[in-house]
Amino acid sequence: MPKINPISGFPELLPNQQIAFQKAMGLVKSVYESFGFIPMETPVVERVEHMLAKGISAKEVYGLRRLAAEGEDGDKDLALRFDLTVPLARYVSQHYGKLTFPYRRYHMEPVWRGERAQKGRYRQFYQCDIDVIGDGSLSLNHDAEIPAIIFQIFRKMEIGDFTIRINNRKVLQGLFANVGLSSDADIKAAINVVDDLEKVPAEVTKERLMKLNISDAHAEELMSIFGIAESNEAVFAMLKGKAGENELLDEGVAELEYVLNTAKSFIEKEEQTVFANSFKIDLGIARGLDYYTGTVYETKLNAHPNIGSICSGGRYDDLAGTFSNKKLPGVGISIGLSRLVVVLIEAGLIPAEESTTADVLVTVQNPDKYTDYLNIAAELRSTGLNVEVFAEQKKLQAQLKYANKKGFPKVIIANDDELEKGLVKLKDMVSGEEKLLPVGDLSTLF
Amino acid sequence: MPKINPISGFPELLPNQQIAFQKAMGLVKSVYESFGFIPMETPVVERVEHMLAKGISAKEVYGLRRLAAEGEDGDKDLALRFDLTVPLARYVSQHYGKLTFPYRRYHMEPVWRGERAQKGRYRQFYQCDIDVIGDGSLSLNHDAEIPAIIFQIFRKMEIGDFTIRINNRKVLQGLFANVGLSSDADIKAAINVVDDLEKVPAEVTKERLMKLNISDAHAEELMSIFGIAESNEAVFAMLKGKAGENELLDEGVAELEYVLNTAKSFIEKEEQTVFANSFKIDLGIARGLDYYTGTVYETKLNAHPNIGSICSGGRYDDLAGTFSNKKLPGVGISIGLSRLVVVLIEAGLIPAEESTTADVLVTVQNPDKYTDYLNIAAELRSTGLNVEVFAEQKKLQAQLKYANKKGFPKVIIANDDELEKGLVKLKDMVSGEEKLLPVGDLSTLF
Repeated sequence: MPKINPISGFPELLPNQQIAFQKAMGLVKSVYESFGFIPMETPVVERVEHMLAKGISAKEVYGLRRLAAEGEDGDKDLALRFDLTVPLARYVSQHYGKLTFPYRRYHMEPVWRGERAQKGRYRQFYQCDIDVIGDGSLSLNHDAEIPAIIFQIFRKMEIGDFTIRINNRKVLQGLFANVGLSSDADIKAAINVVDDLEKVPAEVTKERLMKLNISDAHAEELMSIFGIAESNEAVFAMLKGKAGENELLDEGVAELEYVLNTAKSFIEKEEQTVFANSFKIDLGIARGLDYYTGTVYETKLNAHPNIGSICSGGRYDDLAGTFSNKKLPGVGISIGLSRLVVVLIEAGLIPAEESTTADVLVTVQNPDKYTDYLNIAAELRSTGLNVEVFAEQKKLQAQLKYANKKGFPKVIIANDDELEKGLVKLKDMVSGEEKLLPVGDLSTLF
Repeated sequence: MPKINPISGFPELLPNQQIAFQKAMGLVKSVYESFGFIPMETPVVERVEHMLAKGISAKEVYGLRRLAAEGEDGDKDLALRFDLTVPLARYVSQHYGKLTFPYRRYHMEPVWRGERAQKGRYRQFYQCDIDVIGDGSLSLNHDAEIPAIIFQIFRKMEIGDFTIRINNRKVLQGLFANVGLSSDADIKAAINVVDDLEKVPAEVTKERLMKLNISDAHAEELMSIFGIAESNEAVFAMLKGKAGENELLDEGVAELEYVLNTAKSFIEKEEQTVFANSFKIDLGIARGLDYYTGTVYETKLNAHPNIGSICSGGRYDDLAGTFSNKKLPGVGISIGLSRLVVVLIEAGLIPAEESTTADVLVTVQNPDKYTDYLNIAAELRSTGLNVEVFAEQKKLQAQLKYANKKGFPKVIIANDDELEKGLVKLKDMVSGEEKLLPVGDLSTLF
């Protein structure tokens, strides 16, 4: 067979993996919808100028070109979207008059990065985002809702304990102002230092802070604050010791406290204790993106910190920027589901064993009575089951092998004798258990 | 506000349309899965050479180019997929050893066409395909299953009466051989004449047939066969009058008859009569694509023939072609859902009124008791409902306006007094009816 050279960075899943991926997508979507978020999709392309205006590097952008454009411009001004943020900003600005605010949308589609081909670097991957966009202003209640949504998703995914970490950019900015930083550029640089905390040794962090003209003692103090691993209460006690030192700091602490205290009420009572144990202030998280201005979120699996953050996001003051002269503040999160599902499958945290989404395979022992088997399948299907009928002429053994290989949980078997009596055998493919059931009353089957 | 110039041919939906589209996608997917088809997704890009080798015109293909590739090849060998057939052929060939055959997959993703920008011409649109691929051979039972699947989809979509038309390429080829056509090129040209029947006047059809050296009398006879609008039984009687004239014709007629007789058994008994009335032999359909070799399908809405075929497909002998030296016959159909949903909304055949997928909005009359309202929402959500809590500080009237604008079917209203008594008001936004319900026992609500 001719060899087909896979395109690196554009992952493609086999049936069992695709089914696991689709289940994860369905779960994320159902939680997003359970909180009232509505679906949004956009074309895969945006205008190049819009993407570059948002600071995306041209190196990482896939432009389009018509292969034989014959003197037309060939749509060279179009490029595959790099993220779901530019499309959101453009969509909300473009359709502003037709949307109801706060606009609460989820967007679960692929994005493209013009990375150098390299193992583990995806050039196409799904992002699963929610954002709430306010018209002029946006209540902090939305910031408090986000951790509850993150919790529901990963709790339902059953992938082990996880911790949702939360911080507030105003707290960081206030702390930096307190030690003498004043310019936007310096504060931005300091935020980047925080963002890199886990990636570099402590001495490098200290060096970088001192390069910003922060004193040795202040650098030490900041580093102990970033590294504080105490209870939420203890962190607040420490922060409140600084009340009145800096307005932005006070504002950030108040926001952080409101979000922390309100979030749990979004969760049903029986789950609130688990939630409280999964939700921590971490003054050492900053999130890299420039545009966050308040609450920031990060989520890690307790037993697999090396996977990195599985869900991150935050609050921003200004979504639209160049697209609109409206003030459109927002808060949102993103889950990079393509990589996450592959990693979770590899770690054995989500199963990828079945290559079918059907509930039952109807096997065919006598092809001359094929329509009898079809009627059985139609009856089962009308009760809401997913049913496949084996269509090729093969021996029963080969049909059962097919069922096993694809992972059908149940099969129906019936020979002439049984068909005449109006009976079928239902075989459980896991336990091997068989029982006889009457045709015409199969709805009681499962 | 700066003007944003929409990208023509890349349609983008507003929330109400997106929700209607998503419902249609969900319906198609659930029917595909109910027949045991499994999900497949592929990267949006294929290699240019693979697409051109399959006969796709370079003019209509969107290639990629890295905007700043710095001496790299910039992935210029990649292009956005034109259809879901090249990806299927490539996927099945590439992963042959890891798939279970017959491989039954659905694939519901966008495709891209480098059309000239023009109203009504989509350059990005969803195709919703199923195909069954056999390893070496594939039973005709799969051909018989397809009409049942088409029927279930459009029956559940409730868009009025429709007719699934079926023909067989072997019948057409046999008829053409009977009147003297022998070369592949001539038969291909004749098939194209059939494909254009509805688009051109009868005299043009006749002229085109006679150009292929078909006699006047034979052309007349063929045209009356293509145009036959009698019962399936009458069509078979006519075809059987030709038994023994041509082997391919006999084979085609036998296949057509088997498919027609078997298909209804895939449908539950209560629906078989409606199905029989929706399923017709039409010797005048051919489907344009070269690669069909047997059964072909076409589906039209009875009251809206101008919409054209809403679901088409057929049987082919050789899926893989250049990708593989295996013989991989298949049968499949495709629904172009992007255009279809827009047309159905415009025709009033599917509703697009709601801009929310939530079941209920919890309004907030006393923001100081916000967590009480959150607890009510959490209780409702735990029963499986999609619930949004109004988060901004606005008067009740403004909150009800929001509910109305987005189309929430129900809202919860509670003032201080009611909250203290552990009660909430449930208001039906359509009927206006209100009832009091006890918090803690809301699951009996809906």
